[in-house]
Amino acid sequence: MSEIKIVRNTAPKQKPDENNLVFGKYFTDHMFEMDWNQQQGWHDARIVPYGPLELSPACTCLHYGQETFEGMKAYRNPHGEIYLFRPMENFKRLNRSNERLCIPQIDEEFALKALLELIKMDKDWVPHTEGTSLYIRPFVIGTEPSLGAHSSSEYKFLIIMCPVGAYYATGLNPVSIFVENEYVRAVRGGMGFAKTGGNYAASLKAQDVAAEEGFSQVLWLDGVERKYIEEVGAMNVFFVLGDEVVTPALQGSILPGITRKSVIELLSSWGYKVSERRLSVDELLEAYKKGNFTEMFGSGTAAVISPVGLLRYKDIDMKLSDGKIGELSQRLYDELTGIQWGKCPDPFGWTMKVE
Amino acid sequence: MSEIKIVRNTAPKQKPDENNLVFGKYFTDHMFEMDWNQQQGWHDARIVPYGPLELSPACTCLHYGQETFEGMKAYRNPHGEIYLFRPMENFKRLNRSNERLCIPQIDEEFALKALLELIKMDKDWVPHTEGTSLYIRPFVIGTEPSLGAHSSSEYKFLIIMCPVGAYYATGLNPVSIFVENEYVRAVRGGMGFAKTGGNYAASLKAQDVAAEEGFSQVLWLDGVERKYIEEVGAMNVFFVLGDEVVTPALQGSILPGITRKSVIELLSSWGYKVSERRLSVDELLEAYKKGNFTEMFGSGTAAVISPVGLLRYKDIDMKLSDGKIGELSQRLYDELTGIQWGKCPDPFGWTMKVE
Ligand SMILES: Cc1ncc(COP(=O)(O)O)c(C=O)c1O
Ligand SMILES: Cc1ncc(COP(=O)(O)O)c(C=O)c1O
Repeated sequence: MSEIKIVRNTAPKQKPDENNLVFGKYFTDHMFEMDWNQQQGWHDARIVPYGPLELSPACTCLHYGQETFEGMKAYRNPHGEIYLFRPMENFKRLNRSNERLCIPQIDEEFALKALLELIKMDKDWVPHTEGTSLYIRPFVIGTEPSLGAHSSSEYKFLIIMCPVGAYYATGLNPVSIFVENEYVRAVRGGMGFAKTGGNYAASLKAQDVAAEEGFSQVLWLDGVERKYIEEVGAMNVFFVLGDEVVTPALQGSILPGITRKSVIELLSSWGYKVSERRLSVDELLEAYKKGNFTEMFGSGTAAVISPVGLLRYKDIDMKLSDGKIGELSQRLYDELTGIQWGKCPDPFGWTMKVE
Repeated sequence: MSEIKIVRNTAPKQKPDENNLVFGKYFTDHMFEMDWNQQQGWHDARIVPYGPLELSPACTCLHYGQETFEGMKAYRNPHGEIYLFRPMENFKRLNRSNERLCIPQIDEEFALKALLELIKMDKDWVPHTEGTSLYIRPFVIGTEPSLGAHSSSEYKFLIIMCPVGAYYATGLNPVSIFVENEYVRAVRGGMGFAKTGGNYAASLKAQDVAAEEGFSQVLWLDGVERKYIEEVGAMNVFFVLGDEVVTPALQGSILPGITRKSVIELLSSWGYKVSERRLSVDELLEAYKKGNFTEMFGSGTAAVISPVGLLRYKDIDMKLSDGKIGELSQRLYDELTGIQWGKCPDPFGWTMKVE
């Protein structure tokens, strides 16, 4: 399993304009692929030209949603070197998702090795322009070519990559968020902590409604009591309540974000009191009334830090940080992106050089 | 959109042995396919040789679980004619699933027309042996070739078909069911009523645990209070409690089964009192102690009626119908399969001939 076969792309594509990168549209010249079956386990690791998959129309992932994925980035520093940000955290999370979805575990060290190899081959695809990066999508799909609602007997693990633009084209910008009251994304006992298709499928409807009303994301409430804050579409959330920074505890229904973890570690190192705990909408409303809820932001790989300028719950609008970028949001954004793009020291050892 | 282009399979496969049909493994010579995009809507309807799909590794269904499906059967009657059972119910349900998953609606009449055409082309694949049938799998997948957790801008609708054996090789047989206490399949506000990958992905883990312990399926409880009965893996459930037949009401978290609907209609026509209502495990335990809970069965396209001989909740074993086939289960099974395989009159007009 230590060998990665390489088939070079003999017809490399023209790279897209770095100043007009649309998220998730332009893929690099190569992808990593390996297969699993009961006899051989994971086998046939290979880097091949990026291109379509041939899948049986009956295959498990197309019917029963047995699929997991990750999202991470490679960044180019001012010296032109390429760095990853906490990549092992992603592969560990992938395995936790795999466990929940009855997908065989992947050798995390080997996955990292494969990723490094792939990035080296497509290194010219890591964009140079300020704020851009290479988005990396490892994913696993059940590929047994037969119907039946049981775990697949065959799988594919792939890594595909695409250069992406700055999330905030015009600089960091506050977003409006809407507390979702009708739809539920995930529930205790479900698979909310896993990065798997079904969780995103369940969210589409609410996201569409929110977008129509001019909101960028919905804030999910817990599925049981529908009063405790969970997370937004693709971000974890933080609230500044007086001298406490609160983020919902990980209780199985939300994704354990790697940016979330980094924010907690950073804030703690700066001397902030960070609480991972239950937080109800009512508590937020109370705090807002008292002038004690002053700042909110989301954390995720895509946007890094996303300041929230407006939070709507039913017909109550909570305006935060004067609708501007909160102080803590800005500081966290600067520090995290500074570390990621190699402009600041990395005291935590979070980054990993792609040799 | 009224034209279906036909590309005949010039290399038809050998048909599998009708006495050894494994569910979901052998597909017929053709499949139906059509595509959707924003400009053209549903277009390019075609029947083509059954074969692999070429999908972008970035396509929506492989990452974000935007996929819906149906399951139905075609039956051969003693005169060799082929019949469908309530097929429009399936296409209507597919559209309800599509609506929840932000997938464009399909013209139900057209889908039926396409299915009839497809069955006619592969009519020799509808098996003749007692208890066998042709399983039909319509499904829709999001196929936009780019990443991003939003509704796909492209879709494929397909119908694939496979001959399947009798569900109970040795005749109707009681199964053992286990009340699931840890995992949750779906919750109010979620997508439990839709036939979509994520619901099945969420179930895999519990099914695996149950299978290891010798149970054939788990019985799901509601995700909020974890005390009300929902359904089992791929069946709705019915309980005979004194002179009342109870089945969980449709409140958004369980699949509205077409067999369930037919059972309710049949039972009512026979003069039974059928209640669609909330039913707690505690009520079941109470009724069992009093000798008032005498029979339980599942209903679904695959098994039609599945008598339950043993229901386990925590460490309490409820033995039902003496571990044999309950009286009502047998009567419903005989009547429903009689109608489906054209051996009994069809007073409800449920069957539809494939001309
Ligand atoms: C549902 C959800 N929550 C939170 C996050 C943030 O996680 P991370 O910081 O690891 O990107 C993401 C995105 O990855 C997500 O999809
Ligand atoms: C979750 C679930 N519940 C119930 C059913 C039964 O529905 P039907 O009777 O329409 O087959 C099925 C199978 O189709 C199912 O997958």
